[in-house]
Parts: sequence; C-alpha cells; structure tokens
Amino acid sequence: MKNYIKVDEWKIVEEGFDSHHHQVSESIFSLGNGRMGQRANFEEAYSGESLLGNYVAGVYYPDKTRVGWWKNGYPEYFAKVLNAANWTIIDVVLDDEQLDLAKCTVSNFRRELNMKEGYLKRNFTAKTASGKEVEVEAIRFCSMVDDETAAIKYTITPLNFSGNITITPAIDGDVMNKDSNYDEKFWDEVSKANDADCGYVVMRTKKTGFEVATGMKFVIEQDGKVIHPQTESILKEKYVATKNNLQVQQGQSISVTKYVANLSSQNHKPEDLVKQLDATLNHISVKGFDTMLAEQAAAWAEKWKHNDIIIEGDASAQQAIRFNIFQLNQTYTGEDDRLNIGPKGFTGEKYGGSTYWDTEAYCVPFYLSTAPQKVTRNLLLYRYKQLGKAIENAASLGFKNGAALYPMVTMDGTECHNEWEITFEEIHRNGAIAYAIFNYVRYTADEAYLADYGLEVLIAIARFWSQRVSWSQDKQQYVMLGVTGPNEYENNVNNNWYTSMLAVWCMKYTMEVAGKVKAADSTKYNALAAKINLDEAAEFSRFGHIVGNMYLGHDEKQGIFLQQDGYLDKEQILVKDLPATDRPLNQKWSWDRILRSCYIKQADVLQGIYFFEDDFDIDTIRRNFDYYEPRTVHESSLSPCVHAILAAKLGDEARAYEFYLRTARLDLDDYNNDTEDGCHITSMAGTWMAVVEGFGGMRVRDGKLLFQPFIPEKWASFSFHIGFRGALLNIKVSKDGVQLKNLSDVGATVSVYGKDQLVKANDELLVEA
Amino acid sequence: MKNYIKVDEWKIVEEGFDSHHHQVSESIFSLGNGRMGQRANFEEAYSGESLLGNYVAGVYYPDKTRVGWWKNGYPEYFAKVLNAANWTIIDVVLDDEQLDLAKCTVSNFRRELNMKEGYLKRNFTAKTASGKEVEVEAIRFCSMVDDETAAIKYTITPLNFSGNITITPAIDGDVMNKDSNYDEKFWDEVSKANDADCGYVVMRTKKTGFEVATGMKFVIEQDGKVIHPQTESILKEKYVATKNNLQVQQGQSISVTKYVANLSSQNHKPEDLVKQLDATLNHISVKGFDTMLAEQAAAWAEKWKHNDIIIEGDASAQQAIRFNIFQLNQTYTGEDDRLNIGPKGFTGEKYGGSTYWDTEAYCVPFYLSTAPQKVTRNLLLYRYKQLGKAIENAASLGFKNGAALYPMVTMDGTECHNEWEITFEEIHRNGAIAYAIFNYVRYTADEAYLADYGLEVLIAIARFWSQRVSWSQDKQQYVMLGVTGPNEYENNVNNNWYTSMLAVWCMKYTMEVAGKVKAADSTKYNALAAKINLDEAAEFSRFGHIVGNMYLGHDEKQGIFLQQDGYLDKEQILVKDLPATDRPLNQKWSWDRILRSCYIKQADVLQGIYFFEDDFDIDTIRRNFDYYEPRTVHESSLSPCVHAILAAKLGDEARAYEFYLRTARLDLDDYNNDTEDGCHITSMAGTWMAVVEGFGGMRVRDGKLLFQPFIPEKWASFSFHIGFRGALLNIKVSKDGVQLKNLSDVGATVSVYGKDQLVKANDELLVEA
Repeated sequence: MKNYIKVDEWKIVEEGFDSHHHQVSESIFSLGNGRMGQRANFEEAYSGESLLGNYVAGVYYPDKTRVGWWKNGYPEYFAKVLNAANWTIIDVVLDDEQLDLAKCTVSNFRRELNMKEGYLKRNFTAKTASGKEVEVEAIRFCSMVDDETAAIKYTITPLNFSGNITITPAIDGDVMNKDSNYDEKFWDEVSKANDADCGYVVMRTKKTGFEVATGMKFVIEQDGKVIHPQTESILKEKYVATKNNLQVQQGQSISVTKYVANLSSQNHKPEDLVKQLDATLNHISVKGFDTMLAEQAAAWAEKWKHNDIIIEGDASAQQAIRFNIFQLNQTYTGEDDRLNIGPKGFTGEKYGGSTYWDTEAYCVPFYLSTAPQKVTRNLLLYRYKQLGKAIENAASLGFKNGAALYPMVTMDGTECHNEWEITFEEIHRNGAIAYAIFNYVRYTADEAYLADYGLEVLIAIARFWSQRVSWSQDKQQYVMLGVTGPNEYENNVNNNWYTSMLAVWCMKYTMEVAGKVKAADSTKYNALAAKINLDEAAEFSRFGHIVGNMYLGHDEKQGIFLQQDGYLDKEQILVKDLPATDRPLNQKWSWDRILRSCYIKQADVLQGIYFFEDDFDIDTIRRNFDYYEPRTVHESSLSPCVHAILAAKLGDEARAYEFYLRTARLDLDDYNNDTEDGCHITSMAGTWMAVVEGFGGMRVRDGKLLFQPFIPEKWASFSFHIGFRGALLNIKVSKDGVQLKNLSDVGATVSVYGKDQLVKANDELLVEA
Repeated sequence: MKNYIKVDEWKIVEEGFDSHHHQVSESIFSLGNGRMGQRANFEEAYSGESLLGNYVAGVYYPDKTRVGWWKNGYPEYFAKVLNAANWTIIDVVLDDEQLDLAKCTVSNFRRELNMKEGYLKRNFTAKTASGKEVEVEAIRFCSMVDDETAAIKYTITPLNFSGNITITPAIDGDVMNKDSNYDEKFWDEVSKANDADCGYVVMRTKKTGFEVATGMKFVIEQDGKVIHPQTESILKEKYVATKNNLQVQQGQSISVTKYVANLSSQNHKPEDLVKQLDATLNHISVKGFDTMLAEQAAAWAEKWKHNDIIIEGDASAQQAIRFNIFQLNQTYTGEDDRLNIGPKGFTGEKYGGSTYWDTEAYCVPFYLSTAPQKVTRNLLLYRYKQLGKAIENAASLGFKNGAALYPMVTMDGTECHNEWEITFEEIHRNGAIAYAIFNYVRYTADEAYLADYGLEVLIAIARFWSQRVSWSQDKQQYVMLGVTGPNEYENNVNNNWYTSMLAVWCMKYTMEVAGKVKAADSTKYNALAAKINLDEAAEFSRFGHIVGNMYLGHDEKQGIFLQQDGYLDKEQILVKDLPATDRPLNQKWSWDRILRSCYIKQADVLQGIYFFEDDFDIDTIRRNFDYYEPRTVHESSLSPCVHAILAAKLGDEARAYEFYLRTARLDLDDYNNDTEDGCHITSMAGTWMAVVEGFGGMRVRDGKLLFQPFIPEKWASFSFHIGFRGALLNIKVSKDGVQLKNLSDVGATVSVYGKDQLVKANDELLVEA
C-alpha cells in the first residue's frame, strides 16, 4: 500500500517526485470528460517507466482473441478501447539537453488534481546533468464544456542560465496498446499536416474503421507577450510537431498554451473531420485558456451541486469520497447512449474499457441519484440498442426464439470475453440488466420506458432463462446447471441460488410489466408482441410454471440459502482462521484449490439479498450474513459495499464502517498494488453506495425515498445530495439528527426512521436524533 | 471420411496422386524406429500443401505458454517435440525445371508402406510443364537395427529426353514447428560442413540446449555403377547440400543412395557428435543399402513373431490391425526409459509429442503382451524418474509431505498443459500410473520392481489422494471436490465416482504393497521409509480411514454408480435421440451446453468398471453399461475399446464388434477428418485391446492367463501372439474352437472358457468350440 498522497478535502496532492509512484500517480491524476480522457503522463519527455494512455470514448478495436485451448463458442475478438494519439507532448530542449525528469534532479515537485474545478496542475524545479535549472508549471484539463477539447498551459523559466530553449508541441499517433494480444498496432494514418502554430493527425482504426482527428494549436508567450519564434516542422509517420527555437534570458518565463481537439467519426462525417477540427481549435483558442478554465470550474460546480458528499471530522474520508465522485463524473456524463463505463474509465487500458455488469449493479444507483434522469436512461438504452447482438450471442450458444444473453464484456454488443466459465456461464449479468430496468423505473416512475424499450429487453431475457433451466426428473423441479455466480471462486456449479433467484424474478417481473403495458396501451403491446413473435399464452405459461417450480437450495438446519449444490460438502474453515500468508488467495493459491474451498470472492447469496431485501425478514438476512460473510475474502473491489449496506441494515454500524473503509481509498492508497493499471472506476460507485445506502440507509419504496441513517463514530457529520423525481435534496446526518434541505422548487415527502417528512421546495427541516 | 487406401494384408497402398490426400498420407505413411521418425514428405521439392515433420525422440523445447487469462498455478512452458532437421531432401532439376509433383502431370503414382519389412516405397512417372518425362522410385526406412540411422534409395530415369539432371541431396535444419505459440524458431546452428559426397548440420535447441547432428553421405550410380559427377557445394544458415551435375541419356537410370544419421546429445557428448556422426555414416554406408534393408526386414520379422494378429476372412480388418501394431512399434521400442509415447508418435506435432495418461491406461497392456518385459518396465521407470518433479508439481498446488501429482502432459516430468479444468483437476491420471504398476506386476510377477521403485511412487500418489480428499461435515464422509474425470465433457465436478474409486484403490493397494515389501525385505523397506519420511502409523491410519469412509455415489433406484454429484439432475435424452446434425457435439455445441448435458465423451464410470471388473457382479456391470453407454458420444478415440471389451464380457458380441469398428481404421480411413495432423497412435493400442481383451476375452488372474473368446461373425478366424512370463503363445480363435500354440521353450497353463489347459513348450492343443 502506497500512501504518499497528501490529504486535502478538494485536492489530490503529491509532493516530491518518486519515480516508483509515477505509474500509480498517472492513474490517480487522470483526466476525462466522458468523451475523451488520459492518464497523467508528463508533457515533456520522460524516459522512466510510464504507461502511456490517451483514450477516445467508444473508439475500439476488435483484437484477435488469444487462448491456450480453443473451446467451441469462444468469440473471435476482444474489443478494446484504444490507446489513441498522444496530444500532451510538449518536448523541451535546453541548449542540447532534453528535459526529462528521469535524468534530472527534481525538487519542489508537486502534482495537484483540483477536483473542485477539474484540472491537473504540476510544478517542479529540475536540474539537468549539466547543471541547468528550470522551473516548470503545467496546467491541463479536458473540457467539460467543449467535450472534444482540452488545453494545456506549460510555463518554463530558466533559473540559472540564459540560452537556447526549443519547445516542440506534438501530436503522436504512433502508439500501441500495452495489452495488444499479438503486439499489433491498431491505427493507420489517414492524413496529417502542420503549420507554424498548429498541426493535426487523422488516423483510422484497422478493421473497425473509426477515424479520429487529433489536432493542436498553440500560442507561445514570453514574459506574458505572444511571440512568433523561428519554427521547424517535423513530420513522421502518424506524427506531427513544430519545433520552436527561443532565446531565453535567465529568469524569463516562456509559456506554451496548447489547445487540443479530438474529433471522432462517431460524431462527424469522416470527410468533415479536418474542417471541423480546425473550427473547433479556432473556437477554443479564441475563447482562450483562462476563459476555458473558468468555464470548466463552473461546469464542475454545477456537478458538485448535485452530487457532492460532505464529511466533517475526517478529511481523509472527505478527500476519498470526492475523488470517487470526481472520477465517476470524468468517466461517464450520460450525454451519449453509445457509451458506457469501463472498469478503468479513462485511467488505463485494462479490461479493455468495455462494459461489464458493474454498470447495472453498481453504477446505476449512483447516476440515478446524482445525475439527470437521462443519464441512467442512456445507460439502459445502450443495452436496448444492443439487444439484437445479445440475441445473436444467445443463438450462437444454442438458444432460440429471440432469447437474449447479454455479453459479459462488450464494446458494441458482441461478446468479447473468452473464459468459458465466465463468458458462457456467468449469466447472472442478464439478471442485473433486467434489475437495472426495474431499479430505474422504481426510482424515476418513468413507466413509458417500459412500453417503449424495457419490456422488449425483459422478454428476451426471460426467454433466455426459460430455456436455460432444465427439468430435473430426479428433483421434480427446474434446475439451473453449469453456472458461475458473482462469486467467481466457484465455476460451473449447479443451482447457484443467486442466479436461480434472479432468473425467477426476471420471469415474474417480465409478466408483471407485460400486464401493465398491455393494460396501459394494448396497441403498443400488441405491436411489440407481433414484432418479437410473442406467443403469450405458451411462453408466459412456461415462465409461470418455472416460477412456481424452480429449485432454490436452502439448508433447513442452518436456515440459510445454499450458495450452490454441494456447498456444505466443503471444508468449513472461516477466513479469520486462514494464515495471513495465504492471502490474498488469488495470488497465493492455485486455482483449483480456490475452487474447492468454501471461500467466496464477493457477495453472492448476499448480492441477492441486497437486491431483494424486502422479500426476506431481518432474521433470514442476519443468518445468511452471519454465515456467508465470514467465508468471504472480498477479493473483488465490488464486494465490501454490499456488505457495508447489509451490515448497516442489520444495525452493525462498526462493521458497516469497516467494510466502507476497504474500498474508500482503494486507489488513493493503492490498496491492492494495482492502481498503476488504472483506477477501479466502477467500484467507486460502490463506495458511494456504502455511504448513501449504508450509512444513509437510503431506499426507494412505493415511489418514496426512505432514510435510516447513522453516523460513523469517527465523523462529525456527513451530508449527500440526492436528486429524486425533480427534487434536489441535501441530507445531512450529524449527532444532532438528520437535516433535510430541499434545494429545488419541487416539494418532496421522504421517510426518515420510518416517519414521513414533507420537505417543502427550497425549505429545510431537522429530524432530531 | 477418405477411404482411398487399397486393401492389402501386409501393405498400406495408395494408387494415383491426389494432392487433397497428401497430408493425410504423409501421416499414414510415416516412418519411425523409436529413436527418430518422420512424416512421409517427398524427397524432391513439393510446392503443394504439406506438413513437414522430422522428429528426434526426447528432443523437446519448452515453448512459452499461451493463454487468454492467466490462472494461478499454470505452468510457464509447454514442452513440445521439435520439428528437427529435414534429412529426406533430394532435390532434382531437369535441365532448368525443378521436379515438383505439384507442377507436373503425375501418372503411375503408387505409395506403399511395407509393414512386413518396414520400409516406404514410392513410384511415379512425372511429366513437367515443358513435357519432360521421368520415372522415379524412392525407397526409404528408419533402421530398426542401427536406430540412429536411415537410408533412402532414389532412382530416376528420363523417359523421353537426354540432358542435364542436377541432383542435390541436402540437410535442412531451418525448420519450425507449425504449433509454435509465438512463431518462434527453436533451433540455433552450432556448426555445419559438407564435401563432395557428404554433409552435416549440428543444431542446438534454444533453452533446453539439446544438440542434434544430422548428417548424410551419398553415393550416385549411373546404370548401376558408382560415378563421381561434378559437384557444387551449397551452404546456407542451418543448411548444407551438394549439387551433382549429371549428363543423362534417355532411358538411363540414375540412383542416389542417401545414408542418414541423426545423433543427439542425449546419447553422445556434444563434443563427440561430429566424430560419431562420421563413424556412423561410414558404418552404414559400408554396410550398404541392400544389407541394411535385409536387416530391417529381419528385425521386423522378429517383432511380428511376438505381436502379429492374423485375421482370416476380412482383409480390411487384417490390414488395419497390422497398421496399428506397426505404428505402435515404430513409435516406441522400450530401449530407453527417458522416452515415452506421444499421442501422435512421429507422425505429427499435435499434442506436442508429450506423455499423457494414454500410456498407462492404453499402451501398457499392449506392450506387456507383445514386447519383452523391459519395455513396459521402462515405461514405468520413466514415471519413477520423474517422481521428484511430480512432487514439485503437487507442492506448487499446495500439497505437502512428498505428495505427488503427475502432470497431465509432460516431456521431462514438468507439467505442460494449461487448462485449469484439466491440468489441475483431471487428477485421475495419478491413479492410472498406480494402476499400471499393479498391472505390470500382475502380468509379470516382477515383485522386485515394487521394492525398488513401485512402492515409492505408490506412497507419493497415495499421499496426494489423502490430501486431496476432504471431510464433509454434512455427509460425514470424505469427499473429492473439483475434479474432471476421463469424461472431459464435465468439468470441476464433485465426487466423480471413477476418480474417487481410483483414489481409494490406490491407498488400499499402497498399504498392501507396503506390507508385502516390508515382509519380504524389511531393511529395504525401512530405508525407503526413512528416505521419504514415512510416518507409517499416522499416514496409513489416515489412508485406512479414508478407504473406510469415502463417499462413492450411487443411485439405489437404478442400481448404478453415480458418475458425479448432480448427474441425475441433467436432462436425460439418449444419444440415439439427438438429431444427427448436432453431432459431433464438440463441433456443434458450445462448451457450456456440452457441460450441462448428460453426454459422456468417453468411458468414465465404465473405465472404472473395466479396471476393477472383478469387484463387481455381472448384473452391476450390465446395469451401469446399459445406463451409461447410451449417454456416451465416444468423441475420444480412446472410448470405443473399453466399451468393446465390456460388451464382449456381457456377451453382446455384435456390439463389441461395432465398437471395435469405430477405431480399427480410424486413421486409414481418416474417420475424424484429422489424420492430416498425425495418426492416433495411443488409441491404436486400444484397438489391439478390443481384439485381444474383447474378442479374445483375455485376462490375467492369479498369475494365469484366461481366455473367453468369441469370433466376430464376419471373420473366419483370428489369432494373436501373447508373451507371458517367458512363454510365447499364439491363440487362434475360429469356428472350430480355440487353438493354443506354444512357440517357446516354456510351458504355460492357461484357462479357456473357465477350464485350465496346459500348453507344453513348443506344443499346441485345440479347445473345441
């Protein structure tokens, strides 16, 4: 665990340069605006270890699958988000020496991610091998206002010499993905050009044919005045740069403002890219760096108004929760229903930047409460648009009649993952996608969504479940064989309770929604039924028979649901009794040993209880929690939040807080020694859930928000913003009680500790402790 | 299915050239002598599709493992047998035209594998594009007598022209494996040289550092007289050749006799290789081609004396069974305990030429009966010598105290395979290795082997099983979780009956052998116990407790053993009721669908019943056979033989014959459309078992051979040779009865149809039908 990040309530701060932290910092200090993003690579050259990363949302490449042993059904390709043109480069040469922090003595190094205003700032003093000293300040951001643009202001001051400085802003498209399966490069050059103060490269992805134009325009100032130094053009494959030769006096500052635009053929006609790029660069350069930065601050202020969480009495927790919210907002803005939330966002290339069930199970609750309704709606539409491919995917596995199996990992709807035990068997993802529809409608009351889109998805998913179960002659019940639950430390098990539970719920919910839609608008319903060849009588009767006759394992003696068949045959040694040297299991034990052990990677039965808590009495929840949690190793960053929420529900405040701590600063403290690959973006939503649904006890029931808050002992107070059906509420929990502020013009009735409270528009009230 | 091979009782014959058959023929017409081998690639150039293959037994390369997703415990390397220097090359140019059958009109093409005498002969007439016609005869063999050598006699006659012919014998070491994971070449050149009538290349494998010297010496004759044409030396990387320029008259024959030697640093000091190569080449060239060929015929005659099977009334069956026996003998001679039997022998590179459980389960019975005792003993010693690595392998998976898990696939004892469900979980291989020891001792009565080697292996294996089971609190019995049985269409199942059964048997047998060894020679026993830190009291008491308390699933209602937990939950549609278009399942169904189906790839419960048939009454065998066989798809070539043997035992002669037919001509008729990759060498032993143990009903019980033969309806008679404890018997089964011939000086008592018969030395008797 590296905890070198300074605590500050609104900033992430690194002081002093240590190359060993650099790749972790490149992840943590990442920037993004939902449309593009990048790791915190240095502007000037850096010959030390670094993971280059510049990404354009939705631009992917289907890398040929790599396997040891092919299994029938494996997808041919793994779509991955591409490392795109590097636009940060501002190369600096002092006389004959290249500025390179790996070769300099560095002092006064400070990196600061200003989360309040949304920019990255870096300062340092560097002394070269020959003894030349310079002071540098670099500020950059990806604009939230003009989301295809970014800007950098790079200021350099020679401290102990006068001489020649060359400054070379560049765009370098000759990049590759570190995780390329066959060391291939994924981009071809289409065109490029440059001029004294600008340049661009247009590249096209192989196979997918996306074109991305990345351009720059720069202004050089000396002592605050724009100058036009002698320049030299550099053109190489996929690379443009302009070298500026300057004579600089000791103590005299030179600054380069580099305006950048990144335009993709997803949003522009390929033939218009260069023209549009030019217009965009003109637009922002006329606006100017300072105006852009001010607009950026205003845009972030608006975001924070809707989603800030304030924790008093614990600056470290304050910093952490803001970091999580900040990164989630950098990753996904909900402007475009073709985009989704990669597990690493724009902070790394691991997991291919693709969509996982994390989106529905963890991110949807966050965006529902903190962003406009359309943001979550777009996440749902993303899956709706990919329904055809989910049906194809199921068909390729032998399913029929419009049954859909959504992919485990995807960019455009096609399955990308290729471990059979996950790709083919971790089918509970299909349930999470249905659950997200339910969750969205429960939260927003947007019933129209069901008729227009939701029901079609639900029926396709229910069809899948109805074919995926089989009748056991032996049990005289339906069984679900060969699955992998959320607990990926079990593979190919029979009757995973969570998966079977979800399957039954999906079929029930589908029939319920069908009934509602039919009642509300039978024409629309009939049109849908015709479109998808629904044989309502036969299909719903099968759904109903399965719902009524599904085998769901439970153990009478212990009063628990059975994670899967045979679970009780395992040797039951609790996690606390394992030698510390055996942990984490996934690094210390061979895979088979993990599989036959009783240890649970992440919430499985408990994930089901979290989803459907109203279906169980508190004693049932407690028995299952007390049985399964001590067997859970939480080796997924998605695990602790669900446990925090359930512990809170069970009144175990201390443990709820303990679980919260396990992910709150996961990346800031590099808890799992893997932040260098990128930040755990989707699990950040889990941390938010632990605070709001755990400590805040927030639920939605019967169209109303409920709160059952408590305050962690270490904290003086915490407050969070919740948008709900037009109202914007701030809920502050302190030792005094729960203060409810309504920051909107829409009144709201909420339940606090089981009692209804009307919070009028633009009013507030206190529910005393 | 390609059935273009002509039926002949002693020969494999292909008439007429069809390039579409060529790669299949390259496999079928392969040559080998246990020490080296090769596919039937052409001597002259061939630009059509071909799989080049020259192999040197035991010379392997650890190719870096390729996986999609790494799991803890995966081996870093996959050792594979290497494609070695190609020594067949005799390039022919007619004036300016290269002789290349892909570019000629070919007539009178005939390829003949003479199994009786052990050589490959090829004849053809070729007309080039310009109209030149030549007649060619090529004979070659890998010497069984001088097993590091081979010879080729290549005769060419211009039919319609006189002119210049250049003949270029070459050694080409610049080869690669088709299955190289990262397209790497595995050999470096050490040295090379050539002269007017000879040449060699010495190459060293990367990483493993094996050196192999491949050399040639050639003699050119014109009209039967040795000539010394003008030559030209060609040296390229890893390549030597000598070009011979000849003026030839129409009708005049030119022949090249190419003597070849292949010496490896496994058997010679690296610094002596070139000198030894020279000596070896001199030795055989002095001996001469005709003498070598005569010795080859004699060596094969001696082999056939011990292992021929004669089938009267069915030439196709006759050809097939001889082909199987021939290939098994080409693959493994038992001279060297560092070698083993790759599933493709020297006929292809698939499966890496490595050792699988096929050796113990299928090949041991064949070599026990048809080869000197030391052959099987060497197969056992191979595993004994690798015990240390098997213990390391188990340790890497978390096992302790000298427990051994033999690898699934190996060359030198280290595990090579990397599918977790097989590598880590298909642990029944450990049982087959113990069973082979039992089988060997039962057959040979070589009890000394147990004290010297066997017991040490058995204890290490028993230790593994005793740690691999776990106590189920729920069942109050020991269980075996997370395994894959021989039926690889189930993965990660609990309580696979076959595996658990084997485990119990191993522990029981180990204690029994320990008792015997202790009683016979307590000093030796105590020395072993000390060497391996055996705590007899504690360890054997645990073995005993497991033996007495192991859970072995069975279904009362149907009176069958349960293949694994949950098997009866599966949808039970019999194989015969599956649409033909769904077969073979492994090509038509996705992996998960196969896994959750009831379909069985190959004998699983029935493999256990085959191994331990004396433990079960005939009704139990019948019930299990009748239950499991109809659910078996036999998608492994190792499956039908076990079923043939059990069907024969159950008196179902028709079905026994039907199962036999499924593998008898597997490669000759390219039944599975995959013979181009190489022949199914290990399954050929299974075909032998189907004849001898199935139709012949041969068993060993209480130190005696038992026969319970029947004759397939189509056949007039069949007879087979069996070596047993010094006696050599020929058993001929016909409609008249069973004729027993003793071809040795050692008398033998055998049981036929349950009645003892004494067959005196060099005598015979008839047991009438």
